[in-house]
Amino acid sequence: MLEPLRTEVCEANLELVRRGLVIYTFGNASGISREHGMIAIKPSGVPYDKMTPADMVIADLDGRVVEGRLRPSSDLATHAALYRAFPSIGGVVHTHSRHATAWAQACREIPCFGTTHADYFHGAVPVTAPLTPEEIESAYEANTGAAIVRRMAGCDPLACPACLVASHGPFCWGRSAAEAAHTAVIVEELAAMAWQTLTINPAARPISDALRTKHHSRKHGPGATYGQPGR
Amino acid sequence: MLEPLRTEVCEANLELVRRGLVIYTFGNASGISREHGMIAIKPSGVPYDKMTPADMVIADLDGRVVEGRLRPSSDLATHAALYRAFPSIGGVVHTHSRHATAWAQACREIPCFGTTHADYFHGAVPVTAPLTPEEIESAYEANTGAAIVRRMAGCDPLACPACLVASHGPFCWGRSAAEAAHTAVIVEELAAMAWQTLTINPAARPISDALRTKHHSRKHGPGATYGQPGR
Amino acid sequence: MLEPLRTEVCEANLELVRRGLVIYTFGNASGISREHGMIAIKPSGVPYDKMTPADMVIADLDGRVVEGRLRPSSDLATHAALYRAFPSIGGVVHTHSRHATAWAQACREIPCFGTTHADYFHGAVPVTAPLTPEEIESAYEANTGAAIVRRMAGCDPLACPACLVASHGPFCWGRSAAEAAHTAVIVEELAAMAWQTLTINPAARPISDALRTKHHSRKHGPGATYGQPGR
Amino acid sequence: MLEPLRTEVCEANLELVRRGLVIYTFGNASGISREHGMIAIKPSGVPYDKMTPADMVIADLDGRVVEGRLRPSSDLATHAALYRAFPSIGGVVHTHSRHATAWAQACREIPCFGTTHADYFHGAVPVTAPLTPEEIESAYEANTGAAIVRRMAGCDPLACPACLVASHGPFCWGRSAAEAAHTAVIVEELAAMAWQTLTINPAARPISDALRTKHHSRKHGPGATYGQPGR
Repeated sequence: MLEPLRTEVCEANLELVRRGLVIYTFGNASGISREHGMIAIKPSGVPYDKMTPADMVIADLDGRVVEGRLRPSSDLATHAALYRAFPSIGGVVHTHSRHATAWAQACREIPCFGTTHADYFHGAVPVTAPLTPEEIESAYEANTGAAIVRRMAGCDPLACPACLVASHGPFCWGRSAAEAAHTAVIVEELAAMAWQTLTINPAARPISDALRTKHHSRKHGPGATYGQPGR
Repeated sequence: MLEPLRTEVCEANLELVRRGLVIYTFGNASGISREHGMIAIKPSGVPYDKMTPADMVIADLDGRVVEGRLRPSSDLATHAALYRAFPSIGGVVHTHSRHATAWAQACREIPCFGTTHADYFHGAVPVTAPLTPEEIESAYEANTGAAIVRRMAGCDPLACPACLVASHGPFCWGRSAAEAAHTAVIVEELAAMAWQTLTINPAARPISDALRTKHHSRKHGPGATYGQPGR
Repeated sequence: MLEPLRTEVCEANLELVRRGLVIYTFGNASGISREHGMIAIKPSGVPYDKMTPADMVIADLDGRVVEGRLRPSSDLATHAALYRAFPSIGGVVHTHSRHATAWAQACREIPCFGTTHADYFHGAVPVTAPLTPEEIESAYEANTGAAIVRRMAGCDPLACPACLVASHGPFCWGRSAAEAAHTAVIVEELAAMAWQTLTINPAARPISDALRTKHHSRKHGPGATYGQPGR
Repeated sequence: MLEPLRTEVCEANLELVRRGLVIYTFGNASGISREHGMIAIKPSGVPYDKMTPADMVIADLDGRVVEGRLRPSSDLATHAALYRAFPSIGGVVHTHSRHATAWAQACREIPCFGTTHADYFHGAVPVTAPLTPEEIESAYEANTGAAIVRRMAGCDPLACPACLVASHGPFCWGRSAAEAAHTAVIVEELAAMAWQTLTINPAARPISDALRTKHHSRKHGPGATYGQPGR
């Protein structure tokens, strides 16, 4: 079932490879059919070059596998937690991409140093609090999702479409699996730029509220002027 | 109209992709016909792999669209401001290329640390002052152009063919759209080298006036000895 | 003799090229047949693009060449020392890959800054003590192996499948030559991420014991939940 | 005349492109026939993708053009100075490759931080003193050569096959044009590694004399054990 979703999710996973965000079997993308309440997610540890839509695993919103010959990504419970908490999202991507992971490992949010960043995020890319030993030892993946959801409290997930998990890496999302993969590519680029910005000027400051708001509203919301109408 | 210009501008945009300066729909190149007083510029948010000369948008020097099915790049007013202020230029390129953007985000000019830089710039790659909230809130793109023009006061734009916009990214130019794209590639390389230079030696100093002038005059002006005569 | 081993070792060497870990004739991979007590290793200084399984050199566990027209890699004695000390391993890879070598040259272990690292290593990637002039001047390659073995005392080599040699570069291993090459790619990625982590936050700390243990046990040991059963 | 030399020099120039050391018309390689006392060098400012052996310019040891339709590289006088001073060399390469140029711009020698470096250089990659305004203003290119020759006083040019020109970039050499191009690739890699080494450990120290000598003598001189005999 859910053939179009399987195809889109498989394609989003392959996009991560093409963009250089994952090596070997790293990373995973999923998408959801809100109509069916079903998630399609990458299987665990399967090489990308042999992956087909039929390999995607279907699970419900509690992360229980409903259809699929293969074990789902070990991060399924994190994806499910995000889908439950953020009804506006349709896709989730997790990678260990180099630059974004470095920020996660540094336990630092990625400051909004420029308009490239403001075009996508209405502020910093946040980072979760470290998980407690108790959160790690049982229901680790679900608790990872809960840590992201807690960190995102009060934020519109589409105005802040990613969160770094401390000591781990980025989780990114969007209205679809394709958009989540796009976000993951952008977050990696923002992370690289912010790293170099900080090296050039350790006292670099986030951009002004006025500039941040201007750039975000050029691309998002009713007054958007970027791109072509109706696309 | 302006078919050769459309073709050259489309090609300059594609060169940015080939050189790795832009991802997705980032960046934009334009060119001008001084004879017609008309600018050809990339449409906004259109994927590079589907872009053709016919998609270029024609606008006048006030940034009013004269011909084109598509919306022009949202940075058109900035390009137009540069064409009005710098009569010697024939092309403008704006990117969010990684290294140059890091310097812009750091709000630091790129010092002239070496002869690679001096071959193209008679001094640092300058950075604008931050825009005020008033400049951001209305006529933002035109004010971005004005900030560049103010920063360039007293400089020959062909001896300093780029300026970083603070917290934003590089605007580059040249006698043609192709030359502006070439400049953008060079600025990205200079930015990468300068970043590493500073990391190796935080006390690194700009090169001497004598060396700067020597290299610039080897490639530019009546005494140039670089390249082949008449090319 | 040992045709399948020759083929696997040749392929592991070529994988290093494909992954960008070696240039020119840098690097070497070997594998062992425990049944025969024989090592197959890359010949010294032969271009990768002309290398065939027949070029692999067969040596015994004391590093004496048993079969082969070509001189073995000059690091053979180091490989042999590792095979003698670590009965559980089946392949060894040595590279001068950029990021891992930088850590070796800095004489610093690579801290376990994140879960990417913990998925493969139950702690830091260790670094040997510097070799003494005496160790360098005679039986240098064997003494390099001895320095690794000393540094690994008390560690399970499969829970810590690499060691940096101070002022030199990484030696990596695994259950097979292919797995050792895989480890070498991972170590290079971990080294790159850790470098950037440290630049972003010079006070970055290794991850908690709980998180380190959780990630390692998700991929290794009887409770592993990563990947597909029986693969 | 000198067809084989023209071909080898053209090929060395193209190798710089393939290895990512040059963009546009940056860089130049030359070779010498000691028998004829003639240098073949890249023409100035000609695109690499159109370059053929027939485009190489032939000059004598004083840097006077003897044969060729095109203007020689503007750095010809530097190459000629090196050939006159170092009778054992047969090829010279100059690039503005990113990492090596960053060290030159930092006016810092590249310390011998590891065995990768010691395999090629018996010590640091040196950097010249800055040129004086007088040296820059007249006979600049010849004086650049003289600055290198002064800095190399007392060094065997084949045991130290490159020198950084302060605020400029690397000049590399070898027994042939091909070997000089090889050196240029190695110097770029050593520069990248040393940059990262210094970032990881600002107190990093050059390797011990014993280790430096051991690695250099493994690859060079009568006791060499690296590679295949007679290759």
